[in-house]
Amino acid sequence: MNNNKLKITFLGGVGEIGKNMTAFEYNNEIILVDAGLTFPSDDLPGVDIVIPDITYLLENKDKIKAILITHGHEDHIGALPFVLKHLNVPVYGSRLSIALVENKLKEHPNVKFKGIAVKPKNVLKIGEFIIEFIKVSHSIAGSLALSITTPVGTVVHTGDFKIDYEPIDGTMTDLTRFAEIGRKGVNLLLCESTNVCRKGFSMSERSVGRALEEIIKDHAEQRIIVATFASNIHRMQQILDLAEKYKRKVAFTGRSMVNVSEVAMKIGELSFNRQNIIDIEKVDKLDDKEVLIMTTGSQGEPMSALTRMAAGEFKNLKLKSNDLVILSASPIPGNEKNVYNVINAIYKQGADVIYDELADVHTSGHACQEELKLIHSLVKPKHFIPIHGEYRHLKTHKELAMTLGMDERNIILPSIGMQVEVGPNSIRQSGFVTAGQRLVDGMGIGDMDSNVLRERKQLSEDGICVVCVNINNIAGEITSDPIIITRGVVYADEQESFVQDAKVSIIASLKEADLRGVEPAVIKQSLRRNISNFIFRRTKRRPMILTIVTLD
Amino acid sequence: MNNNKLKITFLGGVGEIGKNMTAFEYNNEIILVDAGLTFPSDDLPGVDIVIPDITYLLENKDKIKAILITHGHEDHIGALPFVLKHLNVPVYGSRLSIALVENKLKEHPNVKFKGIAVKPKNVLKIGEFIIEFIKVSHSIAGSLALSITTPVGTVVHTGDFKIDYEPIDGTMTDLTRFAEIGRKGVNLLLCESTNVCRKGFSMSERSVGRALEEIIKDHAEQRIIVATFASNIHRMQQILDLAEKYKRKVAFTGRSMVNVSEVAMKIGELSFNRQNIIDIEKVDKLDDKEVLIMTTGSQGEPMSALTRMAAGEFKNLKLKSNDLVILSASPIPGNEKNVYNVINAIYKQGADVIYDELADVHTSGHACQEELKLIHSLVKPKHFIPIHGEYRHLKTHKELAMTLGMDERNIILPSIGMQVEVGPNSIRQSGFVTAGQRLVDGMGIGDMDSNVLRERKQLSEDGICVVCVNINNIAGEITSDPIIITRGVVYADEQESFVQDAKVSIIASLKEADLRGVEPAVIKQSLRRNISNFIFRRTKRRPMILTIVTLD
Repeated sequence: MNNNKLKITFLGGVGEIGKNMTAFEYNNEIILVDAGLTFPSDDLPGVDIVIPDITYLLENKDKIKAILITHGHEDHIGALPFVLKHLNVPVYGSRLSIALVENKLKEHPNVKFKGIAVKPKNVLKIGEFIIEFIKVSHSIAGSLALSITTPVGTVVHTGDFKIDYEPIDGTMTDLTRFAEIGRKGVNLLLCESTNVCRKGFSMSERSVGRALEEIIKDHAEQRIIVATFASNIHRMQQILDLAEKYKRKVAFTGRSMVNVSEVAMKIGELSFNRQNIIDIEKVDKLDDKEVLIMTTGSQGEPMSALTRMAAGEFKNLKLKSNDLVILSASPIPGNEKNVYNVINAIYKQGADVIYDELADVHTSGHACQEELKLIHSLVKPKHFIPIHGEYRHLKTHKELAMTLGMDERNIILPSIGMQVEVGPNSIRQSGFVTAGQRLVDGMGIGDMDSNVLRERKQLSEDGICVVCVNINNIAGEITSDPIIITRGVVYADEQESFVQDAKVSIIASLKEADLRGVEPAVIKQSLRRNISNFIFRRTKRRPMILTIVTLD
Repeated sequence: MNNNKLKITFLGGVGEIGKNMTAFEYNNEIILVDAGLTFPSDDLPGVDIVIPDITYLLENKDKIKAILITHGHEDHIGALPFVLKHLNVPVYGSRLSIALVENKLKEHPNVKFKGIAVKPKNVLKIGEFIIEFIKVSHSIAGSLALSITTPVGTVVHTGDFKIDYEPIDGTMTDLTRFAEIGRKGVNLLLCESTNVCRKGFSMSERSVGRALEEIIKDHAEQRIIVATFASNIHRMQQILDLAEKYKRKVAFTGRSMVNVSEVAMKIGELSFNRQNIIDIEKVDKLDDKEVLIMTTGSQGEPMSALTRMAAGEFKNLKLKSNDLVILSASPIPGNEKNVYNVINAIYKQGADVIYDELADVHTSGHACQEELKLIHSLVKPKHFIPIHGEYRHLKTHKELAMTLGMDERNIILPSIGMQVEVGPNSIRQSGFVTAGQRLVDGMGIGDMDSNVLRERKQLSEDGICVVCVNINNIAGEITSDPIIITRGVVYADEQESFVQDAKVSIIASLKEADLRGVEPAVIKQSLRRNISNFIFRRTKRRPMILTIVTLD
């Protein structure tokens, strides 16, 4: 069936942000790389998370042998609780990735999980696949690229990465290994594309540490609060080291900050003197200059610790004028407004704020153009598929590969559901499978184009009007006053006269019609038209209309 | 009453983005500077525009002598139709500003408007105020700063400005005049703060033209579509000049692009050969290399021409692979996602895209740090109030003024509704007046904290469930099957069983209760509790519940 081709199926992470998931299939074996989620944007009201549609995997359940995790970010591990419910296969990843999955699965006690921690340079044989893990730098520790050797040749999957010549953990992206694998011959490179539009090289993580040290020195008398991504262990490590150096005790706040620091410490990814950690409740007993607080909320998330501090609603910590808040992060696209709102609110509390527009307090975990060129040049693949990005990123990455000399025919621009067949000397798009986004919303899982979303959208723009009339369709009479309820339609001071006039209009229209023997469905329709026009004349809005006609 | 003080009241544009409006009051005279609107963010579903609360102006209606317009952007003129309805006073501004207001008022035929066009260096005496208009560069032509001389001294109000040493219209920000006024002595500077967080100098408008020329030369064979702000006349002029130079006919599309180009041409702000303009319907008759299309939609606005082109839904123009789309703009904070969605969609249509991340195709119209320092240094005010920015910008601008040597006590950080009293040698915050945001929504005007918004928000997150039961409370019986309607609650495949089970639950709970003689209000309450709990158990959601109980 497979004609001795490697089949790659893209179930997430291409042409969009988030929820990375790719299946590698050879004959009767599939290995899966990553199983991520997306956090919904504003156009998905009420939706909690978005996960990949795994119909294709369920159809090929018996073939699936393993899930390989490149790193522990939510867009790479977040869908595991849902995927593992259906596919009980072993999960391989770095010690930190596995620990973070275990931590996540505490909330899903019914999900079976067999996690196997691997290290860079470990080699794994799964059926016909030989997988080698390669150390890469990224904004989370324990990130791994993959070299997957198959009967049709070697595929290199970068995962998310950057090149950092001054890595905090002392080991950098294993350029040597990329070079060796490249020299032996690589059939296909799958390379991430997040920062392909950015010229030059990304700033090193250590230079963020140097910027933070300057700020901490300059604000020696102030209490310092640092917000950053809970998963950025190396950032956390640098801040903990600086706190120790400048004799400040550290308090963690925010659920994921507390969780992740615990996990990372337990497995030795984070090292610090326990004596230097204090409870957030106890910071008030210390001098301002003896305190450094690490918090979540660097993206202005509505319920996060920092957002609540900014609003003066955080029980454990009240901001004051001697506080300096450092946002050691930059807004993820779409979060800008929330982040700036939080910064404004902190300023209004009288505290100082330093953020990425004002100082180099953050660096991206993704490779910029020159780093991408380096990887392409070391790996020297025959074929190339840009992954992990919006369509504009994939397109620009394709152009970058072409400027490095790759033939356009050797590049595939992937999209969700696309299957690509790779032979020893060939690559082609071979079809599409069922794939896409599934919305997790309370207890339900639904479609992107579901009525639920369309309805919520209409409700949020224009509100709703419910009209209930009781009719005797033998006599052809309305037998009680119509009931009219609106939500989200008219402002308070207009409500009473609105309802009054709507009733008059409905009664008049029903009286005009001859209702004798008329079906409720017909009455409903004319009622809907009448009230909709009435409201439009009055408010220039078209709210959702629900009509209820009961018969005596 | 006034103790010979100048009173300044901030009704918009401070501590937030948009809707600029400031009142200057001396004894019995008020002049108003600008009357802008804000476009609502996602947290104001269904709201069309946001305008300032003008309660204070209505209370002081007889004092108001004039409205001065610094420039024709919506956040400075957009509220005029609403303000002029209540205040029939003359409006002063540059020829372009007045023409844009006139154009806007075509949709409000009942509003009386007396617009008076002024030029840079014109001096106006209104009661005790002597106003001089000063030429400034900005992203719209006809921008003016104000020098307002009062009995307590001179106030300089920059409006929105930048310093551009290569202005397209040949006249730059009048630094000489700022210097002269500064030398004579300025009591108070009100200076805009938009780009105070950006180091250095803003790029000149002409360098955008140079970048665009390179791109047009490099894509000589392609059809070119440029999206930019309709109001950026100088950008438009440069593009028209390039089109002529490279022998391309120009078609305008998008309502505001067509409108503004007409207005600007009529008053001579835009000059081009009419022969070079063609109808959008006729572009298909020309070779690709002979066409340049100017369109709206550079912010990814949902209904704009560019967004519809990107979606393949624009009747007059279908994108094709030989098209190059240039977004000569950068996303305004909050619009990033919409803009990137449009870029992705254009790429998917097969066309090329160039945008601000990839080339210097846009420059801001606002002064960066070094430009702000220059204005402070020329004007040398005794007192300073940063305006036009979020709170973080005002705060940073205050710090910038302090690094230039100004005493903190001479600076006021304004907020909405704040009144400031200025004497010859003093400045102080003297109180607050009613002020804030009014929402214009269809035909209604409402409050920020109205029920309507809260309801729409709840509806959009969790949907709605309507339950209608008919009861005979003498017999204590339900006399018909309950009617249950949900919108935005359950996904399609669960709908039927949901309604069935809900009915069973409702009937059971009503049967359990003794309904004889019970008030409908009490039945409603228990019904609401029952259905709400049922839905939460089932979906982990709390939709809005409407209950309708009718009695037989």
